Order: sequence, then C-alpha cells, then structure tokens
Amino acid sequence: MKRVAGVVYANRVVISVAIMLCAGLCVGLRQAMADEGMWLFNNLPKQLLRERYGFEPSDEWAQHVMLASVRFSTGGSASFVSSRGLVITNHHVGSDVLQKLSTPERNYYRDGFYAKTLEEELPAPDLELNQLVSIEDVTERVRAAVRPEMSPAEAAAARRAAMATIEKESFDRTGLRSDVITLYGGGRYHLYRYKRYTDVRLVWAPEMAAAFFGGDADNFEYPRYCLDVCLFRVYEEGKPAKTEHFLRWSEKGAADGELVFVSGNPGRTRRIYTVAALKHQRDVRLPLMLDLLRRREILLQQYGLEDEEAQRQAQEDLFSVQNARKAYTGMLLGLQDPRFMAAKEHEEESLRRRLSESPQLAKFAKAWERIAQVQQRRAEIIRQTATFRSQLYQIAETLVLLAQEDTKPSAERLREFRDSARPSLLQQLFSPAPIYPELDRTLLADSIALFVERRGGDHPLVAAVLAGKNPQERAAELVAGTQLADVEVRKRLAEGGLAAVTNSSDPMIRLALEMNAEYRRLRQIEEELDEIEQQAYAEIAELRFALYGTTTYPDATFTLRLSFGPVKGYVENGKPVPPWTTLGGAFAHEERHQARPPWKLPESWHRAKDKLDPDTPFNFVCTADIIGGNSGSPVINKNAEFVGIIFDGNIQSLTADYFYSDEVARAVAVHSSAIREALEKIYHADRILDELGK
Amino acid sequence: MKRVAGVVYANRVVISVAIMLCAGLCVGLRQAMADEGMWLFNNLPKQLLRERYGFEPSDEWAQHVMLASVRFSTGGSASFVSSRGLVITNHHVGSDVLQKLSTPERNYYRDGFYAKTLEEELPAPDLELNQLVSIEDVTERVRAAVRPEMSPAEAAAARRAAMATIEKESFDRTGLRSDVITLYGGGRYHLYRYKRYTDVRLVWAPEMAAAFFGGDADNFEYPRYCLDVCLFRVYEEGKPAKTEHFLRWSEKGAADGELVFVSGNPGRTRRIYTVAALKHQRDVRLPLMLDLLRRREILLQQYGLEDEEAQRQAQEDLFSVQNARKAYTGMLLGLQDPRFMAAKEHEEESLRRRLSESPQLAKFAKAWERIAQVQQRRAEIIRQTATFRSQLYQIAETLVLLAQEDTKPSAERLREFRDSARPSLLQQLFSPAPIYPELDRTLLADSIALFVERRGGDHPLVAAVLAGKNPQERAAELVAGTQLADVEVRKRLAEGGLAAVTNSSDPMIRLALEMNAEYRRLRQIEEELDEIEQQAYAEIAELRFALYGTTTYPDATFTLRLSFGPVKGYVENGKPVPPWTTLGGAFAHEERHQARPPWKLPESWHRAKDKLDPDTPFNFVCTADIIGGNSGSPVINKNAEFVGIIFDGNIQSLTADYFYSDEVARAVAVHSSAIREALEKIYHADRILDELGK
Repeated sequence: MKRVAGVVYANRVVISVAIMLCAGLCVGLRQAMADEGMWLFNNLPKQLLRERYGFEPSDEWAQHVMLASVRFSTGGSASFVSSRGLVITNHHVGSDVLQKLSTPERNYYRDGFYAKTLEEELPAPDLELNQLVSIEDVTERVRAAVRPEMSPAEAAAARRAAMATIEKESFDRTGLRSDVITLYGGGRYHLYRYKRYTDVRLVWAPEMAAAFFGGDADNFEYPRYCLDVCLFRVYEEGKPAKTEHFLRWSEKGAADGELVFVSGNPGRTRRIYTVAALKHQRDVRLPLMLDLLRRREILLQQYGLEDEEAQRQAQEDLFSVQNARKAYTGMLLGLQDPRFMAAKEHEEESLRRRLSESPQLAKFAKAWERIAQVQQRRAEIIRQTATFRSQLYQIAETLVLLAQEDTKPSAERLREFRDSARPSLLQQLFSPAPIYPELDRTLLADSIALFVERRGGDHPLVAAVLAGKNPQERAAELVAGTQLADVEVRKRLAEGGLAAVTNSSDPMIRLALEMNAEYRRLRQIEEELDEIEQQAYAEIAELRFALYGTTTYPDATFTLRLSFGPVKGYVENGKPVPPWTTLGGAFAHEERHQARPPWKLPESWHRAKDKLDPDTPFNFVCTADIIGGNSGSPVINKNAEFVGIIFDGNIQSLTADYFYSDEVARAVAVHSSAIREALEKIYHADRILDELGK
Repeated sequence: MKRVAGVVYANRVVISVAIMLCAGLCVGLRQAMADEGMWLFNNLPKQLLRERYGFEPSDEWAQHVMLASVRFSTGGSASFVSSRGLVITNHHVGSDVLQKLSTPERNYYRDGFYAKTLEEELPAPDLELNQLVSIEDVTERVRAAVRPEMSPAEAAAARRAAMATIEKESFDRTGLRSDVITLYGGGRYHLYRYKRYTDVRLVWAPEMAAAFFGGDADNFEYPRYCLDVCLFRVYEEGKPAKTEHFLRWSEKGAADGELVFVSGNPGRTRRIYTVAALKHQRDVRLPLMLDLLRRREILLQQYGLEDEEAQRQAQEDLFSVQNARKAYTGMLLGLQDPRFMAAKEHEEESLRRRLSESPQLAKFAKAWERIAQVQQRRAEIIRQTATFRSQLYQIAETLVLLAQEDTKPSAERLREFRDSARPSLLQQLFSPAPIYPELDRTLLADSIALFVERRGGDHPLVAAVLAGKNPQERAAELVAGTQLADVEVRKRLAEGGLAAVTNSSDPMIRLALEMNAEYRRLRQIEEELDEIEQQAYAEIAELRFALYGTTTYPDATFTLRLSFGPVKGYVENGKPVPPWTTLGGAFAHEERHQARPPWKLPESWHRAKDKLDPDTPFNFVCTADIIGGNSGSPVINKNAEFVGIIFDGNIQSLTADYFYSDEVARAVAVHSSAIREALEKIYHADRILDELGK
C-alpha cells in the first residue's frame, strides 16, 4: 500500500490510508483480538505479548526502537540503519523527493540514483524527517480548557488554544517540534516531541521498474516482487548526523512463523467510528473521493500523453493517485458488504445495551446521536470547497492565511499557523522544488472547472473566480501572471505581512483573497463539526475504558505505533500462498508477462542475473496490523534487528481502516536479504554495505 | 469525433454526440448563419445555397444523395460507393463489428482485414444498415391524438400510441422500417421509412494504428493523419445487393475553397434548448456523465492490464469511452464559459420580449417556465437508475420487458417494443456476438457498486440486489449462474412469453424482475418530463416559425441531414492551419513522436512508403455543420461525387451541440485520394479499386 499522496483535495498535510477486505468478518472492536493493534509506545501490550508469544519488550527495547524510527513529513515511515544517519524507507515514500530532484535530463525517479561518495549525496529540497523523542500525557490540561457551557465553536477555539499553548511552551523550552495528538477520537491528548532533521540527502534509489515492478496491476496484490526501497541520510551542521539508536541489519531475516514487529506511523484508521459515521463513508465520502481520484488520474494520464517530458512531470503524482484509487475502491467494496455493516451494527447495539447498566453509563447515550447529526451536516457541505488543487494557488492561499493569522496570538490562529509549527510550515512554503507551469495550469484549470461544477455556474463566487473566461483560459492567465514560482517573491510577501499581501497585484494572491471569506466559513464549519464529534467520541472512548479497561490502542493518527504478528502465509481460492517470494521468482514473473511493461525488470537486473542467488527471499507477508503511512516502516525481530521493510498490504487487507483481520489480510514487506543482495550484486553499493555492517 | 458509444448509462439505442468550442461566440439560433445547418432532405435551403454559392440542388440530386446514404444501427453514417452494395464508413463506426468478429487468435480490430474475394467477406453478427427511402409529414395526426385536457402522462401515452399506430400501418403496408421522428423539439412529426439491410459483411479495414493514428492524444485535434475508413457490403438473398444509387468516386477530391456537402445522421444537438435547460446540462448532467465516463475508462483500463487478451476484449469499448470523455470535457468547457451563457441569455431575452407584441404570441410565455421546472425534477432523479451496465443483464432486462409488453397492444407498449420495431429489436437480442464473461462480470460488479453508491447502502432495493454479498461477489455469482450467454436460451425465453420469464430461475432474469417495478417507475417519470418539455418546445418552435419563418433546420435526431460549407483552413494561436494534410505528413508526424505508440504507423505503411505519393492529400477540413453520428458521412461535391468521409471535428468544434461556429470550428474528413492511394499501394485491394471505378 503506497502512500495516498494528496488524499485528494484535502488540505496541505497528507497522510496515507489503506484498508482491508475481510472474507470472514471478525470485527474486533470490543477487545483487540489476534494480532490486532497499532499500539502506543507508552502503552505497549506487554501482558498480551508475554502470554501469546512469551516475549515482553523491555522499556529499553521500546525506547531504542522508538528512537531508531523516523517519520517522513511527506507521509511515510522509515528507520535509522547506521550510526551515521543512514535512513531506509520505501522508494514510493522517497518518490516525492526523487521527483523533485529529477530534471528533464536526469530522471532519478525512473532511473534510480547512487551516490558513490558522501559528497555525491543529493540534498532534498524540502524534506523534513521527525524522530519521536518523548511522549507526555496532557489530557487533563486540554480538557480543562473546555467548559460544558461552551458552544461547539467556543469549545473548539478553547481546545485549539490550549493545545497551541502547550505546544508553544514545549517548543520554547526544548526547541523540539511539539505536537499535541488527539487519541481515541478525543479520549486522550498526548504531547509528542520530535527532533526535526531538515538536511536530508538522497543516497541511493533503484529504478522505478524494480521498485514498482508490476505497477498498478500488481499493486495490493500478492505474491509480489518489488524492491520498494531507497536510502537517505540525515545531516547536522553539514555532516552526517550521529544516530546512536539505529537498527542493526539481521543476518538472515525472519523465519516462517517468527514473531516480528512493525514500528511506524499508520496514517488514519476509523475503527472507533459509529455505524452512522461508517455509512457516511460508504454512501457519501468514499464515492465522492473516488470520483475525484478517477478525475485526477485521467487528467494526469492525458497530460502525460503530450511527450516524455510531460509524462515525467506527471508520473509520480499519477502513481500516487492510482494507488489511492485502488485502495479506496477496495475500502468501499468492504463497506458495501452487507455482512460488514451488519457486524458493525451488532457490535454497536451490544455496546449501547450496556448503557442501561448503570447511571454513570447512561449519560453517554447521546454521543451516537450527535455523531449521526454531524454526518448529515457533513453530507450537506462535502461538495463545497474553497480552494484549488494547484501548487501555485496553494502557495498563494498559504501566504494570504499566514499574513492574516499572524495578526493574532499564536494560540488563536488556525492550527497550522501556530508558532510551534512555523519552521515546518516555512520549509514547505519556501521550497525550491520545481513547479512545472504547464502541469500546474492543467491542474488549476481542472480544479476551477470542478469548482464551477460544484457551485453551479450561476454562483456569485464562480463569476469572481472565472472573471469572464472559461476555466482553461482563466487558469492560463493566472499561471502566466503570477510571480509565486519565485521563492524570493514568496519570502518578500511573507515578510511584508498583511499589507504586502492585501496590496499585492499578483493574480494568484488576488484570487486567494477573493476566496478567503468562503474558505474561512468552511473551515469554521468543519472545526465545529470536528469538535462535536471529538466530544462524542471522547465519551464513547470513556465508556469503552470503563467497560473494557485501558489496555487498548487508539485509532491511527500518523504517529508512531508498534504492531506485531508472525510471518505467515495464507490460503486464497483454496490455494496456499507461501509467506515469501524469491529473487528468482521475480524473473519468472517477468517471463510470465512476456516482459511487457510494467513487468519489465531493469537492465541492471538482467546484467546481474547470473550472480544473484535466485533463492534469496524477496518479499514476505506477516499479520501485523498496518495501514497507509506505515509504508517504509521497519520490520524487526525480538532483538530489534532489521529484517525487512513494509511497503504494501494485500488486496484482502484493504479494509483495515475499519477493522483488522488476520485470516487472509497481510502486510507485505521487502526482505532484508533481498535488499543486501541487490545492493551488492546489482547496484554495487559497497560503501553502503560496509556501513550496514556484516 | 468518434461515436459516443454507449452514451454511458443511457438505455439501449446509442447515438453519438459532439460539440463545439467557439472563441468568438456567434450564437446563431435566430436565423441560420454562415454555413450553419443540418438540413432536412425535404426542406433543403435551396435559396440560401443559390444566393451564397450559386448552386441549387435539384430534387433529383437530393433524392440520389438520400438514397446513396446509409445509417449504421450502431450509431454512425455511411454511403454506397458501388452498384453492388459496397458501403464506406469510418473504421470507428465499423469498430463494433470488427470487435465482435475478432477472436483471441484473429484481432481484426487491431490488425485490419481484407477479403480477397467475395466469398471471404465476413458476415457481421448483428449489424443493421438503414437506407432512408421516404419522408412524410404526419404532424397533424400525431398532434390530434393529444388533447389539451390530458395530463402529461396521458398525453405522452396518447402520443406514443398515435406514433406506434402510424408506424405499424406503414410497416404493415410497406414492409419498411417506419419511424415517426420528433423534429423541432416537438414542432413537427415526420414519418421516415427505411429499407433495412441485415446481411452486412466486412470487406476491408485497415489496422487500428492507421485508422486511429495518434490515438486519444490526437483525437479532436487537427492537423490529423488518420485512415479512419473501412468497407462493408450489403447482401440480399445471399448476393451483393444491387444499389442503383451510389456515390461515384471523385477523381481529384475537393479543392481548397470548394463547396462540399455532408450527408449523414447527426446524433443530437441542443440548439433549441432554453437557458434553464442549458444550465441543467452545465451544472448537473454533464458533470455526472463525465464522472461516469472516467469511472468506466479506469475500469476498462484496469481490466486490460491483466493480459493481451483482456486488453483486446476491452479495447473498443475503452476507445469509445475515451472519445466520449474528451468530447464531453470540451462540451462542458464551452458551457462553463460565462460569455457563452451570456449570449444564450441575451438571445432568449430578445425572443421573450417579442411575446408582448401580439396576443397570439403571449400564450407562449409559460413554455420557458415549464421547461425550467422540468430541469429541477430531472436534477432530483438523475442519479436514480434501475438498470446495470452489463450485456447479460441488459439481455435479461430486455427479455423481462418484452414478455410484459407483449401482453399489451403494440400502440400501448414502451416504444422500443412496438411491432414495427420488432425485427431490429430481435436482431440485437439474439445476436451471436461474443460476450466475455470476465469482462461482463467486471462491468456488472462496478454497475452494482454504483447502484449501491447512488441509492445508499440502506435502501431496500440495494439489499435485494446484493443478496447479502458485496458487489464483486454478487456479480460473479450472477454471471456464473446465468444461461443468457446462450442465444438459444434467449430465444426460448422470448418465445415462452411472460410465463417462461416469470418462472425462470436464471439469476439474471430474477434480478431484472426484482428491478422491474423501479425501472418502470423511472421510465414513467422520464416519459412525463419528456412530454412536458416536448409540448413546451413545440410552442417555442411555433413561435420561431411565426417570427422567423420555417426556413430553418431542427435539432439533430440521428436522422438524415444535409450540411454544407467550403473546404477551408483556419487560424490557431496566430498561425494558419492549412485545410489539408498529406500522406507524407503522416510519416513526419510519426517521426516527431519518435514512433512511440499511438504514433506508430503499421508495418504495412512502412513497407509501402517508397511507393506512396507523399503529396497525396490525407485529411482535410471544411465548415460543414456536423456532430457525433455524422461519423462516416460522405463528403460530396456539387456533382454528388465522393470526395471524402467525415471522421472527426476539431477541438474548437466541441460545442456544436449548442451552437455552430465557422470561425475556427471544423469538420475533419479523410480525403478520397488518400483512400484510393492506400487501397492500391498499401493494401493491394485491387478488386475493390476496380469496383470503385477509374
């Protein structure tokens, strides 16, 4: 499962989603079952692990794994694998950087890259890696800010202010990125402190054809044969960072049946969702998302028809969109299964029956109704947006909001503009990564056309947006007229504050100003709805704690979690699917498809074929509970050794958003042995092999 | 502009649509302007032609051209080009047959076909060609059936009955296919009698790579280089039909600036539409259609990824969908142009101001309001469907409706089940064309999923459709269980009537029975809305006749029309676009794209390259007023000689649905000289060249 880059038409920060299709419906909401769980590092299921696997992770073990884990700001996971800042992640997590570093002349994304020396390592233009260094429970402080008499809007503002204040205090005191994370849908608030690495350099990446062998067709399928891996290095003060905590490379990888762990940042799950909220996903949100994804997929395909250079520009975005489309399709299929919804309804009814057991519990009864009401309001506004999917427009919008928000104290601002988030925000805003005007114009034109469709051509805001032209002409005029491709212009506007922005004659800024009131109106509504839901889910979480205890895990929040489970094959259509594939199998897979793209291995592989050990394990599956955002997560053994790296889930795993199953759903990883074998015999990356040890 | 096969999710009969983007908005509704017009053969603009071009077509000329013109039941135009039944049309009009004749071993659609002898000509499985032989005005008789006191439902039924009775009488008397055509949105009713040809055989087709050179990327673009042509022959009693009226091949084709005519069957225009109806198209219908087209495009692409055979099965459908998606995208862009809608509003206001001029006119005032109300009701139900896009399901649905309708007199049946339409209906229903179970399952699963999305998972009909499974499993079960792929089974069910159908245990029939009440409910609503609109547009047409006279043309109705205009280049982005391209230009175009598919000419072309005259005109443009459905229309000169064949409109022509422009919008044709040159030097089709004469 690749990162769902863009979670299309969402705003800014982007995380991955994936999901599972379960043949034998086993909705494990009441108590984590089998190997279910994306566990908090400060609340690991030690007893469960001891009882089931005879292994209890020590605090030191957990602390070591946490510090060896890394999060990609672009939406993926990774880990340190040397003491000199070497970071391993998926090719498809690094792809954003590979794309940004590529030029018409050097297509690293397609052709791969290897820095033979430290000096050749290529700085990523705007990447930020986060290393989680501490967790603190701040639930009481956040809760105290919200008083019962407050309206949802007031409560949301008060909560936002409390969180921003906690974050600012922490940031001022420690200099660390400080994020208050909402857990259990609002049941708990934890302060996560991260060390930020912003000097990140590309070390090595294989060819696209090896990393994404089988392409969109094989995506979410198994057996698989992908070297979906690349290497970066973090630097501090111009030198490789010293990374005390890193994962040692396992000599043999994991054996069939062996317990393994996955340490990464699952993006988002919805396992706590009420039936009403799930039905909103099924009947409203997912169908709409899929329409948008398919629209974008066709648009990018069409753009790429022009010539090879256009194809290069659109490729990475296209793959991300295809990945998301395939993931959401499976997700929706799961939701549309009557058996799934019946099981969820049954579970919810059981829980709600418990409400009558005691007066303390009865007070929670309204939570479900409030959530149901929120779904209705969401459905009413879901087609209203007030932004455009174009990089240049997004920059304009950010500049306008930044100038406006900065006139307020940090705690009162929209969340992404708070002081403690400023370094990360500016790194993105001032990114020197290339913006392709033709591509951006194409995206903007389509986005404007979509806006016209959704509001209807007679809407007054539509008239303002179009300014008398059709969407194509208007987009062309905006992209040709704006200066925002120039980072210096952005910096001047950001420094100039509100006056600079409001007096700007840049057409993209003017458009963002035009949209501003509507944008804020929608944000306000969303914040209110989120707040109502958060309060309701917090009550449901409290109810669950009261009934089932606190040995449970919260829904995924793109923060560090630990999952576990054995390496284990499964049965599909009556046939056993073995837990791993081999390098030799990749060549056989190519042959089965007559080497038609996307089943054409790179030339480098064919050159090295005779030297490769065909029995080297290549990809493997385990039952660990993962989802989008886990891409690039290290798979480790009990000794915290690196045995592989997560890069996908099989098609049966595509409803993990809503429930876990270990019957046939599996996480898919690249085996550590295949990575070494390829680095040695295909890519001749000797200095890296030395660094990895053994 | 290719046929919009499937006008997606519409019911049964399928015609093409295309459309024009006009830079310099010249909405010519009041009076036909420039070379505007898709003229009725019984109301040709003789005076206009005489005044502007000094040429007045005689009645004999018109009769000859009419009888030499042919309509494809699958949605395109064609003409006779020999006295022995030889028919020329576009490759993309014949593609439906080419696809149906192809097998995993012989891919005629991709690789082309040539019958070296009469005996080798390949019978098309279910094709029907229609030759228009007479036109009769039956307006008074149809109108007399509808009385003012009738409700819309009663009026619609009465009108339907009157039309069916006229058709049945004509059919019984003449044996000819007899269709009452609604013209001017309801202002006139004409009875069209057609000779049906049902023994149609494939004679020759080039390779896909020549017919659709440049593929989806070049589609609707100009300059173009496509040999979008193929040849059929109609047979009677096992022998080539004697076709007295045919078009003689012009020796030189048409010269720059020469007046040419296009005789064909434009599918549908909406030039009479009120502003309210246009806004419904803009804000509701087209966005929805495009979502569906993109959905289908991705689905077929994904299906084709599996292997070459899957690709072969899906290819023709995929191209049709891509063509429609590109056409509708341009169409919507035109509607979203504020200048376009302002011009339409201005025109409508001018017309409505005239209403106050006399008491006779004042009575028409309500027509616009009634049309506006219909649009609102259409918007409310547009997402409700009660059918599934699968061949096997469509067969089941037809069998169920047929059995039910046949219990009523012909005049009271749903229109497609009337006696006079029976031969054509049965030819389709009992077609031996292959149905690919995997492809049909894929389409059905998606269609069921769409139904669930649109109704919401909790709808009782959804529960009935899914029968406890998810859409994929349900579709698999239905396709595996049905016997309807067997033509004999269909025949037995059709012969068995209502009892056979209602007692059938075939799961697809059961599903169609389950859907029947809802299907009929929606048909009923649509019929009512159509009736209200038809009455209103009839009034507006009457008003126009009163104000502007009857020398005008009605909106396109997939019936025979004559368009005209000179061969003429245009100016794009300041650069002149010459009126034609050459065969040599095709090779240069290939080279410009490094022969990457779809810019790779077939090997047969490269083998013949040295022999070909590179200066042979290949494609050319003229200003004739055409639209989808005109695909395959002969282009003729004043002597009624064949000078080319329409196959596309340029991108600027993509709003012709709503208005005509001759500034930059152009019809695109294959030049007669290129066809001869290719038949001789590339395809060595000597017997055909002899038959074409000269």
